[in-house]
Amino acid sequence: MTEESRGASEETPIAKRILIGDPLTTEELEGQLLPKKMALPIFASDALSSVAYAPQELLMILLIGGTAFLAFSPWVAAAVIALLIVVVLSYRQLIKAYPSGGGDYEVARTNLGEKSGVVVASALLVDYILTVAVSVASGVDNIISALPDLNPWRVELAVGFVILIIVVNLRGVREASQAFAIPTYVFIGSVAIMIVTGLVRWGLGDTPVAASAQYSVQAEDLTQVAVILLILRAFSSGCSALTGVEAVSNGVPAFRQPKVRNAQTTLVLMGSIAILLFAGLTTLALVTGVHYAENPCHLIGFDCTNPQPSLMAQVAAATFGAGSIPFFIIQAATACVLLLAANTAFNGFPLLGSVLARDGYAPKALNTRGDRLVFSNGMIILGLAAAIVLIVYQAQLTTLIQLYIIGVFVSFSLGQIGMVKHWRRELRFVKGAERREAQIGLAINSLGASFTVLVLLIVTVTKFTHGAWLVFLAIPVLSILMIGVNRYYRDVSHETEMDDSVHYGSTGDVAIVLVNRLQKPVAKAVDYALAAKHSKTIAVHIAVTQEEADAVQTDWELHDMPITLLTIESPYRQYARPLSEFIAQYRQKHGSSIVTVYLPQYIVGHWWESLLHNRRARRIAQQLMLVHGVSITLVPWLLDSSELIYGRRSRPLPGDDRAGRITSYGLVAHTDDEP
Amino acid sequence: MTEESRGASEETPIAKRILIGDPLTTEELEGQLLPKKMALPIFASDALSSVAYAPQELLMILLIGGTAFLAFSPWVAAAVIALLIVVVLSYRQLIKAYPSGGGDYEVARTNLGEKSGVVVASALLVDYILTVAVSVASGVDNIISALPDLNPWRVELAVGFVILIIVVNLRGVREASQAFAIPTYVFIGSVAIMIVTGLVRWGLGDTPVAASAQYSVQAEDLTQVAVILLILRAFSSGCSALTGVEAVSNGVPAFRQPKVRNAQTTLVLMGSIAILLFAGLTTLALVTGVHYAENPCHLIGFDCTNPQPSLMAQVAAATFGAGSIPFFIIQAATACVLLLAANTAFNGFPLLGSVLARDGYAPKALNTRGDRLVFSNGMIILGLAAAIVLIVYQAQLTTLIQLYIIGVFVSFSLGQIGMVKHWRRELRFVKGAERREAQIGLAINSLGASFTVLVLLIVTVTKFTHGAWLVFLAIPVLSILMIGVNRYYRDVSHETEMDDSVHYGSTGDVAIVLVNRLQKPVAKAVDYALAAKHSKTIAVHIAVTQEEADAVQTDWELHDMPITLLTIESPYRQYARPLSEFIAQYRQKHGSSIVTVYLPQYIVGHWWESLLHNRRARRIAQQLMLVHGVSITLVPWLLDSSELIYGRRSRPLPGDDRAGRITSYGLVAHTDDEP
Repeated sequence: MTEESRGASEETPIAKRILIGDPLTTEELEGQLLPKKMALPIFASDALSSVAYAPQELLMILLIGGTAFLAFSPWVAAAVIALLIVVVLSYRQLIKAYPSGGGDYEVARTNLGEKSGVVVASALLVDYILTVAVSVASGVDNIISALPDLNPWRVELAVGFVILIIVVNLRGVREASQAFAIPTYVFIGSVAIMIVTGLVRWGLGDTPVAASAQYSVQAEDLTQVAVILLILRAFSSGCSALTGVEAVSNGVPAFRQPKVRNAQTTLVLMGSIAILLFAGLTTLALVTGVHYAENPCHLIGFDCTNPQPSLMAQVAAATFGAGSIPFFIIQAATACVLLLAANTAFNGFPLLGSVLARDGYAPKALNTRGDRLVFSNGMIILGLAAAIVLIVYQAQLTTLIQLYIIGVFVSFSLGQIGMVKHWRRELRFVKGAERREAQIGLAINSLGASFTVLVLLIVTVTKFTHGAWLVFLAIPVLSILMIGVNRYYRDVSHETEMDDSVHYGSTGDVAIVLVNRLQKPVAKAVDYALAAKHSKTIAVHIAVTQEEADAVQTDWELHDMPITLLTIESPYRQYARPLSEFIAQYRQKHGSSIVTVYLPQYIVGHWWESLLHNRRARRIAQQLMLVHGVSITLVPWLLDSSELIYGRRSRPLPGDDRAGRITSYGLVAHTDDEP
Repeated sequence: MTEESRGASEETPIAKRILIGDPLTTEELEGQLLPKKMALPIFASDALSSVAYAPQELLMILLIGGTAFLAFSPWVAAAVIALLIVVVLSYRQLIKAYPSGGGDYEVARTNLGEKSGVVVASALLVDYILTVAVSVASGVDNIISALPDLNPWRVELAVGFVILIIVVNLRGVREASQAFAIPTYVFIGSVAIMIVTGLVRWGLGDTPVAASAQYSVQAEDLTQVAVILLILRAFSSGCSALTGVEAVSNGVPAFRQPKVRNAQTTLVLMGSIAILLFAGLTTLALVTGVHYAENPCHLIGFDCTNPQPSLMAQVAAATFGAGSIPFFIIQAATACVLLLAANTAFNGFPLLGSVLARDGYAPKALNTRGDRLVFSNGMIILGLAAAIVLIVYQAQLTTLIQLYIIGVFVSFSLGQIGMVKHWRRELRFVKGAERREAQIGLAINSLGASFTVLVLLIVTVTKFTHGAWLVFLAIPVLSILMIGVNRYYRDVSHETEMDDSVHYGSTGDVAIVLVNRLQKPVAKAVDYALAAKHSKTIAVHIAVTQEEADAVQTDWELHDMPITLLTIESPYRQYARPLSEFIAQYRQKHGSSIVTVYLPQYIVGHWWESLLHNRRARRIAQQLMLVHGVSITLVPWLLDSSELIYGRRSRPLPGDDRAGRITSYGLVAHTDDEP
């Protein structure tokens, strides 16, 4: 009845260590926290990078109505910027009131109840996945704009980047940030220089002209309602510039002290930069006359077998010249910052997951910090989900944008409504300066709530039939799952809760050593069973054939084993069932007893060895554990090959050396005989 | 430190029972044995079915040289038939000398040594896989010949049939045979009638004409060497008629008593029928003027976008008329018998696998009979391998035939050489009638050995560059693996062998109950540990954070637990390592001890519950088992959901009802409180 088990070492294997880095203590957590200049690139890259696609998607939707519709774009862009200001101000309040990193989830849960909290959490989880997908798709799009030959490998590139980001993140928060700080600052700097250069050239009368300015579009004939809807849709797409604002509110615990102040400053800084870049880039796109079409084949004059260059690439080419060094710097920085935006989600998603796990709404495994103090499981789930989305949607940015930002606005809205409720409750209790502060907070968050609910309605109306229905399906499904998980944990906890009626003193105790063939592992199990001084210790052989049974019995006598061997017949080649029947009979005869079944188990050193040992012991253990009053003792037998795992266990513990194994459990073997 | 485990029931689930049937006792094995009239269809379908493709492949190769080369076909066919007679006679001897079902493997191993035996076994395993692939491919080919619309689903059909055969076979040997007897006899009968009808019509001057008789071929200009090689290649392909002869010699144990006599009769009967069908069909194909080309596009006049009908289909259409009822009966019976031929391998492969496992050359799991007394693992491996081959080679018969029969002739040759050695040894000892018998045996097997070695050379030369090199690679690789497996088992067995120096009496015994949070499962583990009366029992909490540690300690005191709780700090969030260090320190202080670690373990009822419990206990157990002198006791805690598995455990055992669980291990809980 021996079986194998591949011992897993707690020590980090070398390959893992190189990829992930050395393990860190829990105390080192504080040392991993972010100073502001690091927090900005790591949390702001999402909001900042969205200027790479938000103006493009905004202008693209307007262009469906024809080039004349581009005249609406300043107004639409202004609305987006106004919204961004309101949201940033609202979140400043939220960070202060709820600095624990729960963000909208915590606000909604505390103020609006469990269901709202779970809906916010689901919406955010969905949006984190889409953030990764959209940012990576846009990053790849910008790479292809600079290097069109890579076009056939769009999906492969995107999935490859997702894998890269997973690995980088598994190394831990701060190192990720260090690697990411430079390109974010290069992006901000180079795009700012481009905007200034372009606008100065415009002011001097040397207006840069985009390549696509020459292509006209086939304008559709639109009704008045359709015109309004189109403008609202352009606004919805432009709102993708807002995503990532919430990342800071979920990441407060990762900031250095004073956490709230630092997080607020980072948030405002981030919002200001995002507004400047968004406004500047939209203006420059209009100045250079970029025509970016939803379907590039609708651009009259454009050979649509080629990939359509991104708005960023077109503006950069117009300003600095296609193929110039600044052009490539801008494209590289844009691609980098977009990939870093994907990284934002790799901070937010696992943090939110761990908060959910802590509250019992998600599997506990999400709240387990890995070797490097990061929530590894959450990162892996996020990466896999994003990769699947990218493959399904073939890394097409415009399609993905249709699903995007709904989740964010669901959580924005519920979070802001929760904040309104929070301030109204505060106002009942506080006085003086605090009361004034609460009144300001109420005003700001009421504005935020109205704006975000309105935008959620617009986004829903304009995006639902363009693919967003999938998100409206995913959010409730996830919410129901979370509620289910919570109910499950509650039931288990209730079932296993200690109560005062617990007392001890079970009597009757018998040990059964399961014997397949008489080999040293069995002898070791017998020795251990005897050492534990059970009231009674017997050996049992389950006989499928009579010959086997006779052979074991003969061997047993030959080696003069110290306990009796009983044989149970099993004509159906079962093991657990005859044994559980035997236990029942034994109890009928000798009264209620606790039964400990000793199972010898091989420990092997290579994965392939598992294939060569059958899993009988594991199956027997699983089945016997269902029998009342039975516990299973696994007595390991380390095969020589297990030295491999053993060798990895660093410094040998005193009295723990393998040579001692043979003698100290009472078997004095001729070690020379061993191969 | 609790963990889940999904209990697996030994009872057969309903779905499995419907597919596979009720379990059988080991004693019922004899009742599962085959009478001759059942053994013929089950073991002979391979050899018989090969007439469906052997004449076709023989004529096809000759046709490469042009229609004139068909004149060689009677001679080539005669050579195949002569070889078949010699092989059948040789195997009659082998069955008698080695009736245990080991066949060529046993003969080669006994007479030529371990390496030869292993090579034979590898060759046979490879050929069993190819038998399934070739037979299914040919079966599908004949189905498509009758129903050309199915052509696009060739591979899907083939894989589907393999799956069907696996399921049928998992139900067990005899029932499979019953289902298979009828079509085999229908096939023999209908093809015989077709041959007689065709030849009579020819005799009466009303010669049937095949549809392809009108298509000529572009003859290649061949050198004299090329002509000889082509004829030899045609012979090689024709030799596929010989496969399956060895199946009987591997299946002797499955025959009823007298096993040897019955097996021999079945072999001769099978050989005779195969020869008659092969000769008749080849003749009829020549009479009707079938032109079957390797590349159908070389047939002048044939629209090669359509599938080329099989030789069997063309002859049947010529004799009875395409689309007539006899035509469809023949095609259906041919397809059926080919699928049954695949079934032959499902008898031979697992039997050989179990013999190899018994001898320690293959994983032990191959020698485990399933519920239905069949070697289930072997069947599943064979089915998977065949499906992969079919997918890789797109179920193309002509390509697969190139790989085929090499394995068979490797084992034929080594088996016959082994038999020669066997008789020569016998001759040294026996006298009188037995001596005469041995002399006849020697003569027959010497002839068999010369013929099969010669054919092996021819087959190697003519097929090597046509794809057979893969087989020449697979056989040594498999052989080396088998030798490796054998050496591994030998080492393990050596390592674990009992010797007389074994004695008992380990002293020092301490039980450690691992505590995560104080819950009922922990209390149960404490109770069990106390009941086992270890010399000392302590509880240990491994503290990742101080708060946790304090909470557990408070709880521990609150509930007045009967043993001391120690706290070990673990700043790196490890569990096994600090514990093994603690054990080492304990031993330094208290002397060498056997340590039993008690781990509470949740038993859950649904697969998804596993996702919600972390696997910490399993990981800890795996790592602690590497520590010298430690055994692991799993104390199961059955969650209410585990009723699901529990419910499947049929009649409740006395004293085994779940209600009793709570009280009898000393915990009297308010069962009403449980959800």
